[in-house]
Amino acid sequence: MESRQLATTVLVGKKPIMNYVLACLATIQSGSNEVVIKARGRAISRAVDVVQILQNRFFKDLKVKDIKIGTEQVQSQTGQTLNVSTIEITVSR
Amino acid sequence: MESRQLATTVLVGKKPIMNYVLACLATIQSGSNEVVIKARGRAISRAVDVVQILQNRFFKDLKVKDIKIGTEQVQSQTGQTLNVSTIEITVSR
Repeated sequence: MESRQLATTVLVGKKPIMNYVLACLATIQSGSNEVVIKARGRAISRAVDVVQILQNRFFKDLKVKDIKIGTEQVQSQTGQTLNVSTIEITVSR
Repeated sequence: MESRQLATTVLVGKKPIMNYVLACLATIQSGSNEVVIKARGRAISRAVDVVQILQNRFFKDLKVKDIKIGTEQVQSQTGQTLNVSTIEITVSR
Protein backbone atom coordinates (compact mmCIF):
# COMPACT_ATOMS: atom_id res chain seq x y z
CA MET A 1 0.00 0.00 0.00
CA GLU A 2 2.45 2.62 -1.27
CA SER A 3 0.48 5.84 -1.63
CA ARG A 4 3.44 8.02 -2.63
CA GLN A 5 4.04 8.58 -6.37
CA LEU A 6 7.16 6.86 -7.58
CA ALA A 7 9.76 9.16 -9.10
CA THR A 8 10.23 8.92 -12.85
CA THR A 9 13.67 9.13 -14.36
CA VAL A 10 14.69 11.15 -17.41
CA LEU A 11 18.10 10.23 -18.84
CA VAL A 12 19.73 13.21 -20.57
CA GLY A 13 21.85 12.41 -23.63
CA LYS A 14 22.69 14.00 -26.96
CA LYS A 15 19.24 14.93 -28.29
CA PRO A 16 18.09 18.57 -28.42
CA ILE A 17 17.74 19.85 -24.89
CA MET A 18 14.04 20.73 -25.20
CA ASN A 19 13.27 17.01 -25.74
CA TYR A 20 14.36 16.36 -22.17
CA VAL A 21 12.60 19.45 -20.83
CA LEU A 22 9.38 18.25 -22.47
CA ALA A 23 9.86 14.72 -21.08
CA CYS A 24 10.13 16.22 -17.58
CA LEU A 25 7.11 18.47 -18.16
CA ALA A 26 5.04 15.48 -19.31
CA THR A 27 6.04 13.54 -16.20
CA ILE A 28 5.15 16.41 -13.89
CA GLN A 29 1.84 17.13 -15.69
CA SER A 30 0.87 13.47 -15.40
CA GLY A 31 0.82 13.84 -11.64
CA SER A 32 4.32 12.77 -10.64
CA ASN A 33 5.58 15.22 -8.05
CA GLU A 34 9.16 14.08 -8.39
CA VAL A 35 11.45 13.65 -11.41
CA VAL A 36 15.00 12.30 -11.33
CA ILE A 37 17.18 13.75 -14.10
CA LYS A 38 20.24 11.62 -14.79
CA ALA A 39 23.24 12.11 -17.07
CA ARG A 40 26.73 10.78 -17.69
CA GLY A 41 29.94 12.39 -18.92
CA ARG A 42 29.56 15.51 -21.02
CA ALA A 43 25.78 15.37 -20.81
CA ILE A 44 26.07 16.38 -17.14
CA SER A 45 26.08 20.08 -18.02
CA ARG A 46 22.99 19.50 -20.18
CA ALA A 47 21.18 17.89 -17.24
CA VAL A 48 21.83 21.06 -15.22
CA ASP A 49 20.53 23.13 -18.17
CA VAL A 50 17.32 21.04 -18.20
CA VAL A 51 16.70 21.76 -14.51
CA GLN A 52 17.42 25.46 -14.96
CA ILE A 53 15.03 25.75 -17.93
CA LEU A 54 12.32 23.92 -15.96
CA GLN A 55 12.78 26.28 -13.00
CA ASN A 56 13.15 29.55 -14.91
CA ARG A 57 10.56 29.07 -17.65
CA PHE A 58 7.99 26.58 -16.46
CA PHE A 59 7.78 25.93 -12.73
CA LYS A 60 9.05 28.73 -10.51
CA ASP A 61 8.08 26.55 -7.54
CA LEU A 62 10.18 23.57 -8.67
CA LYS A 63 12.70 22.63 -5.98
CA VAL A 64 16.01 20.83 -6.34
CA LYS A 65 15.60 18.21 -3.65
CA ASP A 66 18.85 16.32 -4.04
CA ILE A 67 21.92 16.19 -6.26
CA LYS A 68 24.15 13.12 -6.28
CA ILE A 69 27.37 12.71 -8.21
CA GLY A 70 29.25 9.49 -8.80
CA THR A 71 31.45 7.43 -11.10
CA GLU A 72 30.47 4.59 -13.43
CA GLN A 73 32.83 2.21 -15.15
CA VAL A 74 32.23 1.88 -18.86
CA GLN A 75 33.86 -0.53 -21.33
CA SER A 76 35.30 1.35 -24.30
CA GLN A 77 35.26 -0.05 -27.84
CA THR A 78 38.93 -1.00 -27.50
CA GLY A 79 38.17 -2.99 -24.35
CA GLN A 80 39.56 -0.47 -21.88
CA THR A 81 37.68 0.36 -18.70
CA LEU A 82 36.89 4.06 -18.47
CA ASN A 83 35.60 6.02 -15.51
CA VAL A 84 32.66 8.24 -16.38
CA SER A 85 31.19 10.78 -13.99
CA THR A 86 27.46 10.72 -13.37
CA ILE A 87 24.88 13.09 -11.92
CA GLU A 88 21.40 12.50 -10.53
CA ILE A 89 19.27 15.57 -9.86
CA THR A 90 15.98 15.02 -8.05
CA VAL A 91 13.46 17.83 -8.49
CA SER A 92 10.06 18.08 -6.86
CA ARG A 93 7.08 20.43 -6.68
CA MET B 1 38.01 36.08 15.94
CA GLU B 2 37.04 33.65 13.18
CA SER B 3 38.75 30.36 13.98
CA ARG B 4 37.21 28.35 11.15
CA GLN B 5 39.21 28.02 7.92
CA LEU B 6 37.59 29.89 5.07
CA ALA B 7 36.73 27.77 2.05
CA THR B 8 38.89 28.28 -1.02
CA THR B 9 37.36 28.27 -4.45
CA VAL B 10 38.69 26.50 -7.55
CA LEU B 11 37.07 27.64 -10.81
CA VAL B 12 37.11 24.84 -13.40
CA GLY B 13 37.55 25.92 -17.03
CA LYS B 14 39.18 24.63 -20.19
CA LYS B 15 42.66 23.69 -18.94
CA PRO B 16 43.71 20.04 -18.54
CA ILE B 17 41.64 18.49 -15.78
CA MET B 18 44.64 17.53 -13.61
CA ASN B 19 45.46 21.25 -13.22
CA TYR B 20 42.25 21.67 -11.24
CA VAL B 21 42.76 18.43 -9.32
CA LEU B 22 46.22 19.67 -8.28
CA ALA B 23 44.83 23.09 -7.31
CA CYS B 24 42.34 21.34 -5.01
CA LEU B 25 45.03 19.05 -3.60
CA ALA B 26 47.25 22.06 -2.84
CA THR B 27 44.36 23.79 -1.06
CA ILE B 28 43.58 20.72 1.04
CA GLN B 29 47.25 20.05 1.84
CA SER B 30 47.69 23.66 2.99
CA GLY B 31 45.22 22.99 5.79
CA SER B 32 41.92 24.08 4.27
CA ASN B 33 39.32 21.49 5.18
CA GLU B 34 36.86 22.75 2.61
CA VAL B 35 37.16 23.48 -1.11
CA VAL B 36 34.44 24.91 -3.34
CA ILE B 37 34.70 23.74 -6.95
CA LYS B 38 32.82 26.00 -9.35
CA ALA B 39 32.14 25.76 -13.08
CA ARG B 40 29.88 27.23 -15.75
CA GLY B 41 28.36 25.82 -18.93
CA ARG B 42 30.14 22.87 -20.49
CA ALA B 43 32.82 22.88 -17.79
CA ILE B 44 30.17 21.60 -15.33
CA SER B 45 30.86 17.98 -16.27
CA ARG B 46 34.59 18.63 -15.76
CA ALA B 47 33.93 19.96 -12.25
CA VAL B 48 32.19 16.67 -11.43
CA ASP B 49 35.20 14.80 -12.91
CA VAL B 50 37.54 16.78 -10.63
CA VAL B 51 35.56 15.78 -7.53
CA GLN B 52 35.43 12.13 -8.62
CA ILE B 53 39.19 12.00 -9.26
CA LEU B 54 39.85 13.60 -5.85
CA GLN B 55 37.61 11.04 -4.14
CA ASN B 56 38.70 7.93 -6.05
CA ARG B 57 42.43 8.54 -6.32
CA PHE B 58 43.49 10.86 -3.53
CA PHE B 59 41.14 11.22 -0.58
CA LYS B 60 38.79 8.32 0.00
CA ASP B 61 37.44 10.24 3.01
CA LEU B 62 36.55 13.35 1.01
CA LYS B 63 32.88 14.15 1.38
CA VAL B 64 30.60 16.06 -0.95
CA LYS B 65 29.04 18.47 1.51
CA ASP B 66 26.82 20.46 -0.80
CA ILE B 67 26.01 20.85 -4.49
CA LYS B 68 24.27 23.97 -5.76
CA ILE B 69 23.15 24.62 -9.31
CA GLY B 70 22.05 27.93 -10.76
CA THR B 71 21.89 30.23 -13.77
CA GLU B 72 24.09 33.20 -14.62
CA GLN B 73 23.41 35.78 -17.28
CA VAL B 74 26.32 36.37 -19.62
CA GLN B 75 26.67 39.02 -22.34
CA SER B 76 27.67 37.43 -25.65
CA GLN B 77 30.02 39.09 -28.13
CA THR B 78 27.03 40.13 -30.25
CA GLY B 79 25.42 41.85 -27.27
CA GLN B 80 22.83 39.17 -26.55
CA THR B 81 22.12 38.04 -23.02
CA LEU B 82 22.66 34.31 -22.61
CA ASN B 83 21.70 32.10 -19.70
CA VAL B 84 24.54 29.87 -18.55
CA SER B 85 24.11 27.10 -16.00
CA THR B 86 26.48 27.00 -13.04
CA ILE B 87 27.49 24.46 -10.43
CA GLU B 88 29.14 24.84 -7.03
CA ILE B 89 30.36 21.67 -5.35
CA THR B 90 31.59 21.99 -1.76
CA VAL B 91 33.85 19.14 -0.63
CA SER B 92 35.29 18.68 2.83
CA ARG B 93 37.43 16.23 4.79
